[in-house]
Amino acid sequence: MKISKTLGPVKLKLEGGQTLNSANIAYETWGKLNNEKSNAILVCHALTGDQFATEINPITKRNGWWENLIGPNNILDTNKYFIICSNVLGGCMGTTGPSSINSDTGKEYAMNFPIFTIKDMVNLQLKLIDFLKIDQLFSVIGGSMGGMQVLEWAATYPERIYSAIPIATSFRHSAQNIAFHEVGRQAIMNDPNWHKGNYQTSTEKKPKHGLSVARMIAHITYLSEGAFQKKFGRDMQNKVLSWGFDADFQVESYLRHQGSSFVDRFDANSYLYITRAMDYFDLANQFDGNLSQAFKNTKCKFLIISFTSDWLFPTSESLTIVEALNKTAANVSFIEVVSDKGHDSFLLKVDEFHNILNGFISGVARKKGLI
Amino acid sequence: MKISKTLGPVKLKLEGGQTLNSANIAYETWGKLNNEKSNAILVCHALTGDQFATEINPITKRNGWWENLIGPNNILDTNKYFIICSNVLGGCMGTTGPSSINSDTGKEYAMNFPIFTIKDMVNLQLKLIDFLKIDQLFSVIGGSMGGMQVLEWAATYPERIYSAIPIATSFRHSAQNIAFHEVGRQAIMNDPNWHKGNYQTSTEKKPKHGLSVARMIAHITYLSEGAFQKKFGRDMQNKVLSWGFDADFQVESYLRHQGSSFVDRFDANSYLYITRAMDYFDLANQFDGNLSQAFKNTKCKFLIISFTSDWLFPTSESLTIVEALNKTAANVSFIEVVSDKGHDSFLLKVDEFHNILNGFISGVARKKGLI
Repeated sequence: MKISKTLGPVKLKLEGGQTLNSANIAYETWGKLNNEKSNAILVCHALTGDQFATEINPITKRNGWWENLIGPNNILDTNKYFIICSNVLGGCMGTTGPSSINSDTGKEYAMNFPIFTIKDMVNLQLKLIDFLKIDQLFSVIGGSMGGMQVLEWAATYPERIYSAIPIATSFRHSAQNIAFHEVGRQAIMNDPNWHKGNYQTSTEKKPKHGLSVARMIAHITYLSEGAFQKKFGRDMQNKVLSWGFDADFQVESYLRHQGSSFVDRFDANSYLYITRAMDYFDLANQFDGNLSQAFKNTKCKFLIISFTSDWLFPTSESLTIVEALNKTAANVSFIEVVSDKGHDSFLLKVDEFHNILNGFISGVARKKGLI
Repeated sequence: MKISKTLGPVKLKLEGGQTLNSANIAYETWGKLNNEKSNAILVCHALTGDQFATEINPITKRNGWWENLIGPNNILDTNKYFIICSNVLGGCMGTTGPSSINSDTGKEYAMNFPIFTIKDMVNLQLKLIDFLKIDQLFSVIGGSMGGMQVLEWAATYPERIYSAIPIATSFRHSAQNIAFHEVGRQAIMNDPNWHKGNYQTSTEKKPKHGLSVARMIAHITYLSEGAFQKKFGRDMQNKVLSWGFDADFQVESYLRHQGSSFVDRFDANSYLYITRAMDYFDLANQFDGNLSQAFKNTKCKFLIISFTSDWLFPTSESLTIVEALNKTAANVSFIEVVSDKGHDSFLLKVDEFHNILNGFISGVARKKGLI
């Protein structure tokens, strides 16, 4: 059953040396591509995101993850722009990943899926952009792992993008972030239902508990200490303590819910592979440790955004990107948005963030003669 | 087999309403109690600590966790002071806990062990101090959960302590910290070998994987982002990537080791209960939300210490304690020590930290006529 438009099969050579002979890419679009094919914006999703960036997600029946940003007369205005969002390589929403059938064997890839990188994700997206006959994207935008893809686009295909908006991201995954990923992976791999990856994704016998714990860990990192305090503090579920291990505190109940609802929409092996791709991401390393070489001669207009309370991708990481861009005399604007909502800010309606985005996108669109 | 001196059985009424009819308390001492019994220092250990604060731990065969602070001519000078450290209530090193035999049933308590609190831990310690016929401890000192015990001593038995040194701690566990604990508990409880707590602690069929994941999560919170960066960065185990899920990065290998070595010395049910005691800790709540009431009329001399890079128990928490003490015109000294080593700083040889401790303890000892 196809849940999205799908391009494929296409052949994709991977950075690790292997080749996927028949990869599919599932994608959604909103708005209309103009005759000049100059108004396309590629939206890149984060670790657990998907192509359903706006409107109702057919799987979860909930609003898309950037519904507050994409739509008619909204900031990513579907009356003006042609918005594209595709499920990343390795995902579990239609794009080829560990839960896909390997046409060579007739079975799910599981842990036989090759390790892939952020660059491989971008190379698969490029196939879609080529298929749509778009020479140059008006913009590439994304937060967190989506921002890594934006940076990879800017470094690898600078002539294919007019502007780039990496948000709450980094040019290389930090030791602490690798650590958090590693614990999540261990939680999954220690689940006896994981069976070295050979569970049946269609059955209930999946590593749900491990994946749920991985999600809970990650969710803590998406908020900030202040956000936890403000949102939950020590507020209790009931008026009295249980004197036991029930969810006494609202924060416990919230996390348990985040864990258990996640396992219905996400594949554990995809979680392993995509976190690995993030761990492996080091854009500076691709250029012998010199990040500014990644952006050499770029004509792209950059807007870099970080959030004050984001401790997963702190402002210092964005500043390093800005410095590297400055060294190449690139066209770059940077803002650290004041927000107490942590890394999650990039998904939320933070007014200053949305105002800045709006200003930049309108400005660049005017410059390009789109509006 | 007794691995420490043990006091018991004693009867202990718990805050939750239940009574332990025959509790044991395992403890170690160093130095000599003087004739006036005025030179005793009680050292309170943290979540996964034990009574083996210095010298070789007979279980792990490694140095005690505060070996850099306790000993002849050291800051907690065993030539001058009588140092006491006991395993906390609920622990697994000789003091009664979930892995102890319930004399009423002849079986391990497991999850039939009653929920207990930080106050209950202190009440059990008080039995030991009474047994040793010490009217007033010269000092009570501890970091993290040890600091919570120090604060509880100061609030509940102010006349029994001459000075108090709570380090890297809080008067109430924060929402974010409850969240981290909850994820650790879920990792343990989701391990199929947990069996609702009814595993045999003496066999290999214990929830090792779950406990290991819980330890890995906790370990991330003990360091700081900067410490991770400095200690590991993106340094690899081998020169080339594995293009798989081996421990490619040194930080992964480090965490895996922390997890696997922990399960040999700690009981999973103890981990559940002790984290719960920390979650339940809210000293202000014991005094209708007014923390300064907790320290009303105290004559105790306080030294409060926090560390700049400690994000588990940030300086703001210590400052709230200082403010509450100031409101009662208490004798309080506070220092935020500059350290990039995160929460773990309280266990490490951080010079400024040790110098401050040395100055305070000597000063208070002189005031009391001990030296």
